[in-house]
Amino acid sequence: MTSSKSLTHLDASGSANMVDVSAKDDTTREARAEGFVRMKPETLAMIRDGNAKKGDVLATARIAGIMAAKRTHELIPLCHPLVLSKVAVDIEIDETLPGLRVESYAKLSGKTGVEMEALTACSVACLTIYDMAKAADRGMTISGIRVLAKSGGKSGDWSVDPRETAE
Amino acid sequence: MTSSKSLTHLDASGSANMVDVSAKDDTTREARAEGFVRMKPETLAMIRDGNAKKGDVLATARIAGIMAAKRTHELIPLCHPLVLSKVAVDIEIDETLPGLRVESYAKLSGKTGVEMEALTACSVACLTIYDMAKAADRGMTISGIRVLAKSGGKSGDWSVDPRETAE
Amino acid sequence: MTSSKSLTHLDASGSANMVDVSAKDDTTREARAEGFVRMKPETLAMIRDGNAKKGDVLATARIAGIMAAKRTHELIPLCHPLVLSKVAVDIEIDETLPGLRVESYAKLSGKTGVEMEALTACSVACLTIYDMAKAADRGMTISGIRVLAKSGGKSGDWSVDPRETAE
Amino acid sequence: MTSSKSLTHLDASGSANMVDVSAKDDTTREARAEGFVRMKPETLAMIRDGNAKKGDVLATARIAGIMAAKRTHELIPLCHPLVLSKVAVDIEIDETLPGLRVESYAKLSGKTGVEMEALTACSVACLTIYDMAKAADRGMTISGIRVLAKSGGKSGDWSVDPRETAE
Amino acid sequence: MTSSKSLTHLDASGSANMVDVSAKDDTTREARAEGFVRMKPETLAMIRDGNAKKGDVLATARIAGIMAAKRTHELIPLCHPLVLSKVAVDIEIDETLPGLRVESYAKLSGKTGVEMEALTACSVACLTIYDMAKAADRGMTISGIRVLAKSGGKSGDWSVDPRETAE
Amino acid sequence: MTSSKSLTHLDASGSANMVDVSAKDDTTREARAEGFVRMKPETLAMIRDGNAKKGDVLATARIAGIMAAKRTHELIPLCHPLVLSKVAVDIEIDETLPGLRVESYAKLSGKTGVEMEALTACSVACLTIYDMAKAADRGMTISGIRVLAKSGGKSGDWSVDPRETAE
Repeated sequence: MTSSKSLTHLDASGSANMVDVSAKDDTTREARAEGFVRMKPETLAMIRDGNAKKGDVLATARIAGIMAAKRTHELIPLCHPLVLSKVAVDIEIDETLPGLRVESYAKLSGKTGVEMEALTACSVACLTIYDMAKAADRGMTISGIRVLAKSGGKSGDWSVDPRETAE
Repeated sequence: MTSSKSLTHLDASGSANMVDVSAKDDTTREARAEGFVRMKPETLAMIRDGNAKKGDVLATARIAGIMAAKRTHELIPLCHPLVLSKVAVDIEIDETLPGLRVESYAKLSGKTGVEMEALTACSVACLTIYDMAKAADRGMTISGIRVLAKSGGKSGDWSVDPRETAE
Repeated sequence: MTSSKSLTHLDASGSANMVDVSAKDDTTREARAEGFVRMKPETLAMIRDGNAKKGDVLATARIAGIMAAKRTHELIPLCHPLVLSKVAVDIEIDETLPGLRVESYAKLSGKTGVEMEALTACSVACLTIYDMAKAADRGMTISGIRVLAKSGGKSGDWSVDPRETAE
Repeated sequence: MTSSKSLTHLDASGSANMVDVSAKDDTTREARAEGFVRMKPETLAMIRDGNAKKGDVLATARIAGIMAAKRTHELIPLCHPLVLSKVAVDIEIDETLPGLRVESYAKLSGKTGVEMEALTACSVACLTIYDMAKAADRGMTISGIRVLAKSGGKSGDWSVDPRETAE
Repeated sequence: MTSSKSLTHLDASGSANMVDVSAKDDTTREARAEGFVRMKPETLAMIRDGNAKKGDVLATARIAGIMAAKRTHELIPLCHPLVLSKVAVDIEIDETLPGLRVESYAKLSGKTGVEMEALTACSVACLTIYDMAKAADRGMTISGIRVLAKSGGKSGDWSVDPRETAE
Repeated sequence: MTSSKSLTHLDASGSANMVDVSAKDDTTREARAEGFVRMKPETLAMIRDGNAKKGDVLATARIAGIMAAKRTHELIPLCHPLVLSKVAVDIEIDETLPGLRVESYAKLSGKTGVEMEALTACSVACLTIYDMAKAADRGMTISGIRVLAKSGGKSGDWSVDPRETAE
C-alpha cells in the first residue's frame, strides 16, 4: 500500500495525530463541495413563495456555512488552522429533488488542502436549513455531501466523475 | 396554515430571529439521529483491518461529534444555548453500504428540543471520518443525515416511518 | 456608598472577579439596547437602493448580532454563561442621521440580567455593517450604544429617560 | 460607481460573501481605532479613586479588547481569519467627557487590512467597562467608535480629518 | 468494583461518552483547586518588585483563568456545559517555592460537580503566568494542580487530607 | 537587565500587551513539553487493564490535547494566533509514578515560538485524564508541566538540563 493511500492521520503506532505539513509548498488551493436537503414539496413551496422569508432563510444558511468554514479546525480534531482567503456558499432551489442544493467553495494560499473547509461549510448550511424549516417538516434529510473538485498541492487536481451523481 | 407548520424562525416581517422559548416547560427532551459515510470497499477494509487504527479513527470521530453537539448554538445561528445532560455517538461498520453508519443521541432537561444537537453530532462525526480517510478515498459521500426520533416537549413524540430508509 | 452603587465586579481586595449569582432568583429578565452607524448619505443610498443587496447587508448584520449575543460570556470576562431564551435584532434606515439604527432584545429565565447580551448584539451588528460598507466609506462612526430598558431581577425595572437621546 | 466604492461583500447576485484576497500582496498593515464610554462624574470618580480597583477595571477591559481582536473573524461573518502580529489597547480617563477613552491598535503582515480587528478590540473593551460599572450607572453610553488611521495595502494610507471629533 | 469506582466516562462497550446527568438533583455545588508555578528567585523578584507590572501580570492571569473556566466544556471532551454562578481566581507570591500559588473556586446550582472548572481555571492561570515570564525564565514548572475540596451532589463533600501537600 | 530577561508582555507603562512579532523571521519553530498525572496504583490498573477502555481514555486525552493546542491564543490572553503545521500528543503509563506521562510536540513555520501551544496541549490532556478517572480517584495531581526543548527563532535552541527531573 503506498503512502498516498494510507490513513494519513494515524502514525506508526496507530494513534490519531495531525499530519506535519511544514514541508509542503505554499500554493493556491481550492475546493468545491455540494450537499442537498430533501424535503416535502409543500415545505419547499413555503421557502420559495415567501419572498422576504426565502431571502432570509437562504441568507442565514449561507452566512452560517461561511462562518463554519472558518472554524473547521476547531471542529475536526486533526485539521490544521488555515488562513482562508475566500469562502462562498450558494443555495438554489431544486424542484425535482424536491429541496435545496448547497454548493460551497473555499480558497487558500497555503500548505494544506481546503476540502474539509468546503465540506464543513456545506454541512452547516444544510443543518441551518433543517433548523429553520424543522417545525414544518421533521422528516427532511441531508444527503449527497461530497467534494466536487479540488486543485493545488502535490496530489494535484481532482474532480468527481461527471457521470456520478450523489442525488 | 397553522403555526405548527410555518417557518418558525422568521418573524412577522420575514426576518430570521430566534424563537422565544421562555414560556415552554422544562421537560426531558431526547433526540436520535443517524448519518452515513459511503466509501470504497478497500477504504472500509483499511479502517476495519487495522485494529489499533480502527479504534483511533472511530474514537476520534466519536469525540469530535460529542464536542460539536455542545457547540451547536455557536454554529447554527438561531439555535438556543442548551445545558445538555447527555450526548452519545456510536459508529458501526456497514459492509453492504459499504461504509460507516453514525448514530447520535442527545438529551436535555430544558425548554427546547435537541434534534439540532443530535444532527450536528452526526454531521461532524461524518466529516471527521472523511478527514481521516480522505487521502485514500476522495470520493466518499456523507448521506442520509436525518432525525430518527425525538421525544418531549409540546409537539410530542415523533419518529421516522420504519419502512423508510435514508440509505 | 451602598452596595448597589459599587463596582460589583471587584472584590474586597480590588481584584476583578465574577459576582456570585447563586442566591438570586430565577426570574424572567429582559433588556433592550440600541446603537447607530452614522455614514455618508451616498453610503446609505447604496445600502437602501440595492434591493437584494440591502436585504443581505441587513440580514448578515442581524445574524451576526444574534450569534454574538450567545457568546457574550466568552467576550466579556466577568459575564456569566446564560441560557438565553430569545435574542432579536432589528435594523432600520434613519435618513436624518444619516445611517442605520440597530435595536436589540434579549430574554432569559435565570439569575442574571441580560443587558450585556443586548449590548453585545447591538455592537457586533454595528461592526458588521461597518465591515460590509467600509470600502465605500471609511469614516463611518458607531455611536449611541446604550441600554434602553431592562426588567426583572431584584434591582427592578429601569429605562432611559425618554427625553434623552443618544444621537 | 467604481469598484472601490461599492459594497465589496456583496457578489453580483447581491449575496453576502467573503472577498477573495488571495491576489493581494502580503504587506505590513496597521490600524488604530478609538471609542468612548460616557458616564456620570461619580461613576468615573469611583473608577479613578480606587487605586487597586481602577487598575483591575482597566486591566480587565484591556485584556478583553485584546482577546476579542483575535476573534474578530468569528464574530464578523465576512472577515478573514488573520495572523495578527500585534494588538494593543490603551484606556485613559477623560474628565471632560466625563468617562473613559479607549484606543486600540492592530498590526499584521498579510493580505487584508486590520480595521475590523482594531474596531472590535475597542468595542469589546468599552462593553467590558460598561459591564464592570453597570451596577453603579446603567445610563452609560458607548460612542464615537471609529477608525482613526490605517496604513498598508493597495488602497493606501487613510486617516480621519484631525478637525473632526467623534465626541 | 462498585460503580462509584469505575471510569464513568466509558460505557459498557468501552467507548468514551458523556455521563447522563439528567436524573441528578439541582444542588449547590462548589469546588476549590490549587496549582503552583515554580520559578527562579530573580524571576519572582521581577514580578514582585515591579508594582504596576505585578498588578498586570497577576490581573491578566486571573482573568485568563476565569474565562477558561467558562470554556471547560469546550476543552474537556466529556464535560457537560454548565451555567456557572461564580468563578474566582486568586494568586499569591510564595517566597519559599519560589514562585506563585494559584487558587481557584467555582460554584454552580446544577446537576454536575465543578471540579473540572476549578482545575481548568487553575491550569490556564498558571499557563498565562508562564507565558508572561517565559522570556526571563524558560525553566519554570507548573505543578501541584489538584482539587482541594468539593461539596454538593450525591457523592457528598470531599477534601484533601490536610497533611498532604502537593508542593 | 537586558531586554531578553524582562517581562516582555508588559509595555513601558506596565500594561500587559501583545509583543509585536512583525519584524521576526519566518523560521521553523518546534517545542516539546511534558506533564504527569499522579494517581493511586489501583486507578492506574483500571486504566491499564481495561484494554478497550484504556484505548479510549488515552485517545480521548490525546485528541483533547491536540484540539486545545489549536486554541492556545484564545485561552492565553497575549499569545498570537498561529498557523500550526503539526501537533502531537503521546501518553504512556509510568508504573513508578504511579500514573501517566504526557508528552506533547508543536511545530510551526512562523514568527513566534510554540512553547505555549505544547504546554497547553499537555495541560489539557492531563485535565482530560483527570476528568475521565475522577470518579475513582479524586486525589489525582497534575504536576511537572514544563518545556523540554525548543528550537528555532532568534533566541535559539534551548532544552532542560537532562539531570533535572520534574517528577
